Amino acid sequence: MPVKIAVNGYGTIGKRIVDAVLSNKDFRLVGIAKYRVDYSAYLAARKGIPIYVPRERASEFREAGLEPHGYVDYLFEEADLIYDASPGGKGAGNKKIYESYGKPGVFQGGEEPGVAELSYSTLCNFEEALNKKYVRVVSCNTTGMLRLLCTLHREYGVKRALSVIIRRAADPKEDQRGPVNSILLDPPSIPSHHGLDARTVAPWLDIVTAAAVVPTTLMHMQFIEVELSTQVNRGDVVELLDGINRFLLVESASTGIDSTSKVMELARDSGRPRGDIYENIVFIDSLSINASRLYLFQGIHQESIVIPENIDVAYAMLGIESDPLKVMERVDSTLGIGG
Amino acid sequence: MPVKIAVNGYGTIGKRIVDAVLSNKDFRLVGIAKYRVDYSAYLAARKGIPIYVPRERASEFREAGLEPHGYVDYLFEEADLIYDASPGGKGAGNKKIYESYGKPGVFQGGEEPGVAELSYSTLCNFEEALNKKYVRVVSCNTTGMLRLLCTLHREYGVKRALSVIIRRAADPKEDQRGPVNSILLDPPSIPSHHGLDARTVAPWLDIVTAAAVVPTTLMHMQFIEVELSTQVNRGDVVELLDGINRFLLVESASTGIDSTSKVMELARDSGRPRGDIYENIVFIDSLSINASRLYLFQGIHQESIVIPENIDVAYAMLGIESDPLKVMERVDSTLGIGG
Amino acid sequence: MPVKIAVNGYGTIGKRIVDAVLSNKDFRLVGIAKYRVDYSAYLAARKGIPIYVPRERASEFREAGLEPHGYVDYLFEEADLIYDASPGGKGAGNKKIYESYGKPGVFQGGEEPGVAELSYSTLCNFEEALNKKYVRVVSCNTTGMLRLLCTLHREYGVKRALSVIIRRAADPKEDQRGPVNSILLDPPSIPSHHGLDARTVAPWLDIVTAAAVVPTTLMHMQFIEVELSTQVNRGDVVELLDGINRFLLVESASTGIDSTSKVMELARDSGRPRGDIYENIVFIDSLSINASRLYLFQGIHQESIVIPENIDVAYAMLGIESDPLKVMERVDSTLGIGG
Amino acid sequence: MPVKIAVNGYGTIGKRIVDAVLSNKDFRLVGIAKYRVDYSAYLAARKGIPIYVPRERASEFREAGLEPHGYVDYLFEEADLIYDASPGGKGAGNKKIYESYGKPGVFQGGEEPGVAELSYSTLCNFEEALNKKYVRVVSCNTTGMLRLLCTLHREYGVKRALSVIIRRAADPKEDQRGPVNSILLDPPSIPSHHGLDARTVAPWLDIVTAAAVVPTTLMHMQFIEVELSTQVNRGDVVELLDGINRFLLVESASTGIDSTSKVMELARDSGRPRGDIYENIVFIDSLSINASRLYLFQGIHQESIVIPENIDVAYAMLGIESDPLKVMERVDSTLGIGG
Ligand SMILES: NC(=O)c1ccc[n+]([C@@H]2O[C@H](COP(=O)([O-])OP(=O)(O)OC[C@H]3O[C@@H](n4cnc5c(N)ncnc54)[C@H](O)[C@@H]3O)[C@@H](O)[C@H]2O)c1
Ligand SMILES: NC(=O)c1ccc[n+]([C@@H]2O[C@H](COP(=O)([O-])OP(=O)(O)OC[C@H]3O[C@@H](n4cnc5c(N)ncnc54)[C@H](O)[C@@H]3O)[C@@H](O)[C@H]2O)c1
Ligand SMILES: NC(=O)c1ccc[n+]([C@@H]2O[C@H](COP(=O)([O-])OP(=O)(O)OC[C@H]3O[C@@H](n4cnc5c(N)ncnc54)[C@H](O)[C@@H]3O)[C@@H](O)[C@H]2O)c1
Ligand SMILES: NC(=O)c1ccc[n+]([C@@H]2O[C@H](COP(=O)([O-])OP(=O)(O)OC[C@H]3O[C@@H](n4cnc5c(N)ncnc54)[C@H](O)[C@@H]3O)[C@@H](O)[C@H]2O)c1
Repeated sequence: MPVKIAVNGYGTIGKRIVDAVLSNKDFRLVGIAKYRVDYSAYLAARKGIPIYVPRERASEFREAGLEPHGYVDYLFEEADLIYDASPGGKGAGNKKIYESYGKPGVFQGGEEPGVAELSYSTLCNFEEALNKKYVRVVSCNTTGMLRLLCTLHREYGVKRALSVIIRRAADPKEDQRGPVNSILLDPPSIPSHHGLDARTVAPWLDIVTAAAVVPTTLMHMQFIEVELSTQVNRGDVVELLDGINRFLLVESASTGIDSTSKVMELARDSGRPRGDIYENIVFIDSLSINASRLYLFQGIHQESIVIPENIDVAYAMLGIESDPLKVMERVDSTLGIGG
Repeated sequence: MPVKIAVNGYGTIGKRIVDAVLSNKDFRLVGIAKYRVDYSAYLAARKGIPIYVPRERASEFREAGLEPHGYVDYLFEEADLIYDASPGGKGAGNKKIYESYGKPGVFQGGEEPGVAELSYSTLCNFEEALNKKYVRVVSCNTTGMLRLLCTLHREYGVKRALSVIIRRAADPKEDQRGPVNSILLDPPSIPSHHGLDARTVAPWLDIVTAAAVVPTTLMHMQFIEVELSTQVNRGDVVELLDGINRFLLVESASTGIDSTSKVMELARDSGRPRGDIYENIVFIDSLSINASRLYLFQGIHQESIVIPENIDVAYAMLGIESDPLKVMERVDSTLGIGG
Repeated sequence: MPVKIAVNGYGTIGKRIVDAVLSNKDFRLVGIAKYRVDYSAYLAARKGIPIYVPRERASEFREAGLEPHGYVDYLFEEADLIYDASPGGKGAGNKKIYESYGKPGVFQGGEEPGVAELSYSTLCNFEEALNKKYVRVVSCNTTGMLRLLCTLHREYGVKRALSVIIRRAADPKEDQRGPVNSILLDPPSIPSHHGLDARTVAPWLDIVTAAAVVPTTLMHMQFIEVELSTQVNRGDVVELLDGINRFLLVESASTGIDSTSKVMELARDSGRPRGDIYENIVFIDSLSINASRLYLFQGIHQESIVIPENIDVAYAMLGIESDPLKVMERVDSTLGIGG
Repeated sequence: MPVKIAVNGYGTIGKRIVDAVLSNKDFRLVGIAKYRVDYSAYLAARKGIPIYVPRERASEFREAGLEPHGYVDYLFEEADLIYDASPGGKGAGNKKIYESYGKPGVFQGGEEPGVAELSYSTLCNFEEALNKKYVRVVSCNTTGMLRLLCTLHREYGVKRALSVIIRRAADPKEDQRGPVNSILLDPPSIPSHHGLDARTVAPWLDIVTAAAVVPTTLMHMQFIEVELSTQVNRGDVVELLDGINRFLLVESASTGIDSTSKVMELARDSGRPRGDIYENIVFIDSLSINASRLYLFQGIHQESIVIPENIDVAYAMLGIESDPLKVMERVDSTLGIGG
């Protein structure tokens, strides 16, 4: 019997979790919690997604011609698992509500680690999530970084890592955030918090991160340097990454794809819903190895990269399946990753 | 029996024509002409689209693991109609080739009007395209402008029009074109060529246009002022446009959509392939009327707006159907416009 | 004896007023009011500009190694005229303070018109400002628009005007405001408030304005259409504008300057302080005339365009000089405009 | 007696060399070679800079109202030293001309190293330039990198370095180059050519560089990691850099300056001509040290950073002064650096 899911918050992340849940027979969507009337409310209604609203907002929705499916309390009551996809920082408050219903919850990377029992990334610590009640899927940049570093660590041992993150300024829909013509150090000190965040999942990791924000909306770009415990062969690393669906290897020389905008064009042309790319986009021509040091660039599609991990973790938390490989295979196939 | 189509050039416009042809039972795609190995060649191959190449390039494609379906001469020989989707300015040269095969052709807005017997826009001069051999679908901005002006002219009479076009700098995939931080007058004189181009289709039109390029990739934005022959009622104009599928009316106040990026988010969320918007995006809150003067802003999705007209015109040129309303109904339904 | 000036707020506008005051022998700068320690406080100190701070902030400045010249109450007490250059909307509150000292004040365009007795633009209504106590210099876009329209009105009569304003998203220093990749209708309705604002100065003006924000920091660009009361000759209009220092005529064909970034390069190369351009930048190739209709593009350097008017108005308010031509000649010469 | 200087090419770099020469009593500007009539020709004429043109272009200049000072052959004949500031790649051809006049020349970073006897950066190899005839000042990014690395190497020894360069897309004046909304790997492989270029000056340097282009015009941003030969103390490094005028240390916490746009605002407010910053802009809060590893971010103002080195090198090539410290002191004082 499918697991009943509530999604609290229907923004960039929430709407993608909803679509992932709808495409997966192991889950059943009870509905979403919406707090404001906007175009996404109309669109959800048109798609037949049940909308639950706070009691005090119901009349507002009705006046807009949107009859709510019910109130949010019913939604939480009914669900087996609640996805919190509220704006960063709101999760801690929401958790109290979930606890009052005795319901487990998945939080996002915008929350402090303390909101949950565990910070999570499938390729690093799936097993630790088994039967946990509150788990936090780390942020987009951390997710992308950890997929790579945990994979390399498992295979070769990672002694030390460095990442310089060239961050996108705003999501495509956000037209209020800048900068317009600047490179913004965020933070202006080194290390940035991303390394710390990675260590909430992988405490063994010796990493320094630095981050600068640039005027683009499409994707983050991570430069990565890794010092491995052993000398490795470039071909072996390529084969390793190529064998894992969560990495999409892009060859620049033969395809002409050498920028984030060209990658997005590929995603649009490939028919990916919303042009989403769930995978780490490894610019494979940049992967270079010097003795035990490995360098590469990878693109991180901030809007969608955390979706697979969000679904994976439900399998662990609810004890549906305890083998991460099987979980990823299942999740990837419903999302159209790999294959 | 479906009409056999060749598409010459597989870039921004060509690939969309291909998809439109594939989704329409009245047509059958013979194949595309490709001149260079790049990611779109691989993607076309993976989608099962027959690729035809110049003889002298065949080995290049084979070395890249792409066995061509045949040579371009066969493609042109076989087709009933050739779409020219080559870079602006190449069409005139290509036309000689099409003529040598005795095949009719549809050209794009990047060509000089003289390349064809007729410059075309469905809502203006469908009838004139009946049984023509060479027709040019006008550019994205001109297409958007003419859809509106011809519709208003038919209903109310257009005495005079003005358009200030805020142009996107580059298509999303193009990462070489700027400006990065500038507003570029293109041209620095008034009027711009857009008005002239509109008059190749609608010679009755008294119009002044001016254009500035700004650093964005998503869409053109047109400010339009029209002096109508009669006083009109705002509600009537809204109803008029709302009744024609080629216009998408976006209400800002209730939906929160007041920018090109939010419109694109709507398109992505709505599941439009590639996030394309074939319609004129009329920001309906901006539609205001002062006696016989009408003002509005409309967004023009440069990558896709000309696709419906490209398909429409084939019905006229080949004499498949002579009623433009029936043609648009047919084309719109295959493209998922309206409904 | 020079007039004693206080400047309240030392941001984009305030620091330019300070420099204009310092370069003009008719005025003497008492000092500036600063509320926060930041680089501009250090810079002001290094330039020898007296800094006055609120009593409760004095220790903060001292700890940062910046000994304040005194407290703001002394500054206001001492001044003959106070320039309010606080963030838009703060002026109304500040006015109460100025009144409590019985001091006249000049407000900026971010305030509501009601903050002052008069909304002001030199080429329109200098005479009305004579001996006024509180005057508001209208915003950058309105100032640029009014310079042109009042000049044309005086000479030819303006029957009707239209402006489409392509707005810069943020000032160069602002790295938090967007959009990054969007055209934002602000407002999504027509008319925008700019026409209303212009009418606070020129109530006779029949004008429609519309505005869109684009991702650039350098300058606003205004498309202007004017219906004049008489037929005019292009050469005469060029001569008219060329004869007034507040207009800088830029010829594109011979100089290659056809964009806001190239204009800014000209300003930098010309040695303008901060690269400022106090004048309306009239792209003279765009000036075209069709019977009694005139069209043109003008660039508006938002950071500096209101500075001359801010200085002009002091001459009127304090009764130093009542002939606007003499005032402008004086102000222009101290600012290095024209000549 | 001052050394006679010719500047061949009057673009971004050339006009700054001219201004540096004009401000320095050790040199006398014979004139500039101009090849096209544009606004900078008018501006040079207005500033009284002698313009020399190719014979065949003289009439073009005359028709534009610009009487040339003479022909380029005279300019080269007359000069003791020629600065080549032509577009990248043209220098090799120009060199033949300089040789035909037997004149020494300084080339820019856009040329291949082979154009000159020596690739040059003052803090690395001033002495090698003594009495050389053809020297190439390395590019903006390489100059910035080498200033830092040679300084650290002299003091502590540099074992290994890494730089991730976040490149500006275009110079402020350039409105044709993109990308508008993309991060472009240039090159898509690692290492980029910058490390190689650095080794043309400092062959002892073990360095890996990677580069991505982002949509901004103001400045390059370099992330730098250096493995030093000894453990160092952060305070000592700060003191070291602070003691050298070619480094401008910017503290973010106290000044609020944490982005390239805010740095440029500082330069404008400080009255720097054109808002130029000749120094490496070291974001000092980012300087962090972990045992013998040092990390930092530095901004590189591409338009002006190579100017001091261009002037320095003339002292060496012409044997005017052989002590680099004295040369830098002299050059810095004429350019307003430090002090
Ligand atoms: N956008 C990204 O790039 C990205 C990537 C990875 C992780 N995240 C994280 O995901 C979370 C959600 O971010 P987003 O980008 O989807 O934000 P968003 O602003 O797009 O969406 C947030 C949604 O939550 C709703 N909401 C507001 N208050 C709420 C409340 N109290 N409870 C529940 N919902 C509420 C809003 O109406 C909105 O629909 C954040 O923690 C963020 O840090 C975002
Ligand atoms: N992109 C837009 O916004 C847009 C909008 C409306 C109309 N148009 C017009 O459509 C036409 C195509 O533009 P696009 O944006 O698709 O260009 P594009 O550069 O994206 O694609 C052009 C394609 O033509 C191929 N090609 C090169 N030489 C060719 C030749 N001699 N013959 C045939 N094909 C050749 C190229 O390999 C490429 O695949 C132009 O006339 C353009 O003005 C473009
Ligand atoms: N920036 C422009 O493009 C522009 C153009 C024309 C007019 N204006 C108008 O000028 C005014 C100032 O704008 P700005 O761009 O200089 O803003 P800004 O943010 O650059 O500067 C405002 C300054 O005021 C100080 N301040 C904060 N609170 C204050 C208070 N209560 N009293 C006095 N000062 C205070 C701030 O510390 C800051 O130094 C606004 O009304 C704005 O609308 C701005
Ligand atoms: N702009 C930068 O960021 C930067 C930084 C460091 C180094 N450089 C290097 O400096 C050199 C000049 O670059 P720029 O940015 O000043 O270019 P630019 O395009 O701004 O200026 C080049 C000038 O050379 C003139 N010119 C054209 N052909 C010429 C010829 N055959 N001989 C002499 N002059 C000719 C042009 O008219 C123009 O005035 C290049 O090697 C470049 O790589 C540029």
